Amino acid sequence: EQSIDSIVNERIKEALQSLECNPPASASISCISVTNSGKLSSCPAGTSVTGCSCGYGCGSWDIRKETTCHCQCSVVDWTTARCCRLV
Amino acid sequence: EQSIDSIVNERIKEALQSLECNPPASASISCISVTNSGKLSSCPAGTSVTGCSCGYGCGSWDIRKETTCHCQCSVVDWTTARCCRLV
Amino acid sequence: EQSIDSIVNERIKEALQSLECNPPASASISCISVTNSGKLSSCPAGTSVTGCSCGYGCGSWDIRKETTCHCQCSVVDWTTARCCRLV
Repeated sequence: EQSIDSIVNERIKEALQSLECNPPASASISCISVTNSGKLSSCPAGTSVTGCSCGYGCGSWDIRKETTCHCQCSVVDWTTARCCRLV
Repeated sequence: EQSIDSIVNERIKEALQSLECNPPASASISCISVTNSGKLSSCPAGTSVTGCSCGYGCGSWDIRKETTCHCQCSVVDWTTARCCRLV
Repeated sequence: EQSIDSIVNERIKEALQSLECNPPASASISCISVTNSGKLSSCPAGTSVTGCSCGYGCGSWDIRKETTCHCQCSVVDWTTARCCRLV
């Protein structure tokens, strides 16, 4: 006959394994740059736009639909979106 | 008389419910843009400044008190702060 | 003789303490700016580059080896990297 102790330990072990927080792996921020010719560049799904860079020294940009860098200067030959997520 | 098994399972279930990590919802990065006229734009509390954009093509900015984008060029008509947090 | 209840509670308490998820402290994004003279500025290990700023109004930058802001304009006297991580 199993001792109470061993029954208890077994049940606890099973319960905790299903919890996926044994302990939670430490998350971190991971970023990529996505560059396109022209005035628009979009981040892939699952990432967020944290900043943009534009050709011809242009520092005026805005973000459309929360996914796409838009460089506003009249002459811009490329656009880079900086895209970050948790890993 | 309750079996040991059922007592054990009951106690474990109660204990785990109080833990709020069943399992932890996966966090992600969420960002917004805050635009102001002039050379300053601040991020709301609880968010962090990840980058800034300035009018008149200006790409020179710094961040004041960790909350506020400051566009440095002599002529700047608007400033945008990119503000991110975990959700 | 210890009651089943107290044995069970004891074991559960011990098991959960080792789990470090009681409950997990809420993480947040923390950023710093790292500024250097010239056209390059790098983020410290453990942080990610979310954006860059450059002297002389330059808004054209790229990121090298995922750590270093590179300002591309011909005349650039300083470079700032915006570096973020989870805390």
